[in-house]
Amino acid sequence: MPDFAPVAARLAESAEANREALFELLHIPSVSANPDHRGDCRAAAEWVRDFLANAGCTAELIDTGSAEEPGHPIIFAKSPRIDGAPTLLVYGHYDVQPPDPLDLWTTPPFEPTVRDGKVYARGATDDKGQMLTHPLAVAAWHATHGGPPVNVTFVIEGEEEVGSDHLDAFLESHREELACDAAVISDTSQFAEGVPAICYGLRGITACEVTVTGPKADLHSGLFGGSVRNPANALATILASLHDAEGRVAVDGFYDDVRDLTPEERAAWAALPFDEQGFLAATGSPALTGEAGWTTLERRWARPTCDVNGITAGYQGPGPKTIVPSKASAKLTFRLVPDQDPDVILAAVRQHIERHCPAGVTVAVKPYHGTPGVMFEPNTPPFEAAKRAIEAAFGTPPVMIRGGGSIPVVRSLGNTLNCPVLLLGWGLSSDGLHSPDEHFSLDAFQRGALASARLMWELAQEA
Amino acid sequence: MPDFAPVAARLAESAEANREALFELLHIPSVSANPDHRGDCRAAAEWVRDFLANAGCTAELIDTGSAEEPGHPIIFAKSPRIDGAPTLLVYGHYDVQPPDPLDLWTTPPFEPTVRDGKVYARGATDDKGQMLTHPLAVAAWHATHGGPPVNVTFVIEGEEEVGSDHLDAFLESHREELACDAAVISDTSQFAEGVPAICYGLRGITACEVTVTGPKADLHSGLFGGSVRNPANALATILASLHDAEGRVAVDGFYDDVRDLTPEERAAWAALPFDEQGFLAATGSPALTGEAGWTTLERRWARPTCDVNGITAGYQGPGPKTIVPSKASAKLTFRLVPDQDPDVILAAVRQHIERHCPAGVTVAVKPYHGTPGVMFEPNTPPFEAAKRAIEAAFGTPPVMIRGGGSIPVVRSLGNTLNCPVLLLGWGLSSDGLHSPDEHFSLDAFQRGALASARLMWELAQEA
Repeated sequence: MPDFAPVAARLAESAEANREALFELLHIPSVSANPDHRGDCRAAAEWVRDFLANAGCTAELIDTGSAEEPGHPIIFAKSPRIDGAPTLLVYGHYDVQPPDPLDLWTTPPFEPTVRDGKVYARGATDDKGQMLTHPLAVAAWHATHGGPPVNVTFVIEGEEEVGSDHLDAFLESHREELACDAAVISDTSQFAEGVPAICYGLRGITACEVTVTGPKADLHSGLFGGSVRNPANALATILASLHDAEGRVAVDGFYDDVRDLTPEERAAWAALPFDEQGFLAATGSPALTGEAGWTTLERRWARPTCDVNGITAGYQGPGPKTIVPSKASAKLTFRLVPDQDPDVILAAVRQHIERHCPAGVTVAVKPYHGTPGVMFEPNTPPFEAAKRAIEAAFGTPPVMIRGGGSIPVVRSLGNTLNCPVLLLGWGLSSDGLHSPDEHFSLDAFQRGALASARLMWELAQEA
Repeated sequence: MPDFAPVAARLAESAEANREALFELLHIPSVSANPDHRGDCRAAAEWVRDFLANAGCTAELIDTGSAEEPGHPIIFAKSPRIDGAPTLLVYGHYDVQPPDPLDLWTTPPFEPTVRDGKVYARGATDDKGQMLTHPLAVAAWHATHGGPPVNVTFVIEGEEEVGSDHLDAFLESHREELACDAAVISDTSQFAEGVPAICYGLRGITACEVTVTGPKADLHSGLFGGSVRNPANALATILASLHDAEGRVAVDGFYDDVRDLTPEERAAWAALPFDEQGFLAATGSPALTGEAGWTTLERRWARPTCDVNGITAGYQGPGPKTIVPSKASAKLTFRLVPDQDPDVILAAVRQHIERHCPAGVTVAVKPYHGTPGVMFEPNTPPFEAAKRAIEAAFGTPPVMIRGGGSIPVVRSLGNTLNCPVLLLGWGLSSDGLHSPDEHFSLDAFQRGALASARLMWELAQEA
């Protein structure tokens, strides 16, 4: 087993060079949503490819899409092969969100600037800064030992901010070459400043649009009001029926497949340094509330929801308009937890809606794409290795958390490669991702690279 | 008492001339909403003034508004004074709706054309054709007896289709000169073809906008869903709470001041030749439904309602969007019946909404202007006179009905002049008012003029 000390030393010595590497990458305006930046996206891909090649990897730039509808390239790279050693797959992305509104940036978004120990630039935390920690780790291993003690595979894409349209096809077509024991993604956050975290579960989602139709055209509310069912009132009745007075989703069978929180999880989450007042202030809501019987973190991470995302009906301009509208519609998302099945839930929701539709109107439910929640067993060897690596790099053991959103690539990796996914976020939720003045702590950048290098060592130990 | 026979004979003889007079007026494109037609509105006003002057009245054109914001003129005219005789006030309007969409007209809207016994033109039924029956009646009395046997006052305005902005000020400032025993308005409809009607009651209205506010901005439904109250869900809960399962408005005290339908009214309405299937087809709704225990006509005419006129919340574009919206709002109208007070009802509604607003969001209720319902005693002398007049002209007694909408001028006349208002509609609801191919039966036009002339005679008899 190689000695880790020189790797750590190398990372410490190269801190300045590593920052410069990051700044080079941050200078490239690789905005995937904007066709004008197609060349910049390719330049960022080439930068990543060249960096990995210089770190001893075989690195390929793989074009995606077709000649008519080209995508942005995927960088596919592998460290020197060690037969019998475990394989770690690193996923990340080199593309960034558009920087608009530009006038809210203190310094230009593609001129990385350090203030107060943080680098400010578009992509600093999402995801160039966090992603780059893994190539830096491989480079340190390469410089000290000729390569990492495990097989490391990189999949760095350029379409994460625009829906990862070509990723699944790449994963499918390279399934065998991508086989791994664990995947790691650094595109989330620490739990709080100084509280590193490993996220071992995410909620899924299913969504639909409900349209209630009554009269064939908007009717005069005086001449017709009272004689026909009003679709907007009916929609409200249907939507209100989706919850009971305790904030529980009132759809039959909705909770049947919900995996219970264990007493250990509840105790661990209750012990987290969660700043409930700060969280409330961030929402701007008058109060935190929801399904009775669960804490705020439990409701966000481990309980399913039903949220109306939008409603549209009748007249929406200024002042009154005396009509019975012809139609009313609402968009709904249901956040799901393991082991709820999106299709089963959507069928139950549809049945509920149809059953609660009042006489005198008709209702249609249009389904949108769904994805199940994911949860990895957090006491397995890859997670134990990650815990030790983070403790070594950050000086404190990580907290074990789950997330309320969905990260489609986690599901894609899990599905295609059948591997656990380690979500190791080095950033903070306050880093301004997708916002002006996005930034990333240079200390976290350095520690993240150390944790990544250490993770490779720990995984080699386990084998 | 003058003999009525010559008046009837005169109207019959002048049928052709009376149509030509109507066609002259219909040729004038007096679209009050369109500033380009300001001159046409004035031309129509002058036409009415001249017609009444030729019919023996003193007729004035009264400008409204200010030099900066001019209104359209009001024609104020009086038949030759008969001391001691009752006074009938005729209200009508010479302005018309815009004729758009022009391509849906079979013949041009301001080129009156007769097809199948009906004249097609914008304003044919609303209100030039119906209104003109009263000047024609006075003209027939003028030609045969030097003037009608009662005092007739005309108030013919040009802003009915744009909100009658200057009418109330005119009524107020001319209150003494406008004193009358009854008012007549022909701007409604017969109950059905061949079933003339007198409308003796109208619903009132109150309206408001409800805005529910939660987070300070739209939130990610994954990161925040379940932790905060969703304003769109909360709005649905509030709106759904406004009705009970029987379709009754569930606001405390809402029905306290509702004047009960008499058994006689219910029996009379049940005997009306109401084409329920035809009405259903006109709405295009799957079924007629509403407050339990009342017929469709009862619900439309004599029961108050709560209709959501529009809802707006969150995302309304195509596809899903995973947000908890920051705000959700709805517009509400409550149709009121005697003796509900709009202010009392709105206060009760506000209290209900505030009480049903779930924790974790705030609610604001913005009131709009309200007006009470009106109801006249249908067995009083003016109504009896109108019944006899209609029977004489149409060959069948009128049915006594109420209306579901509000006609603000009825309230204005009732309030300012403290007189009963006879709503004698000669048109049909299928006349296409406000629509392309608006039309009016020439037979109804002729009979309407005869009924108006006869009404003057009947009122003189009563005196």
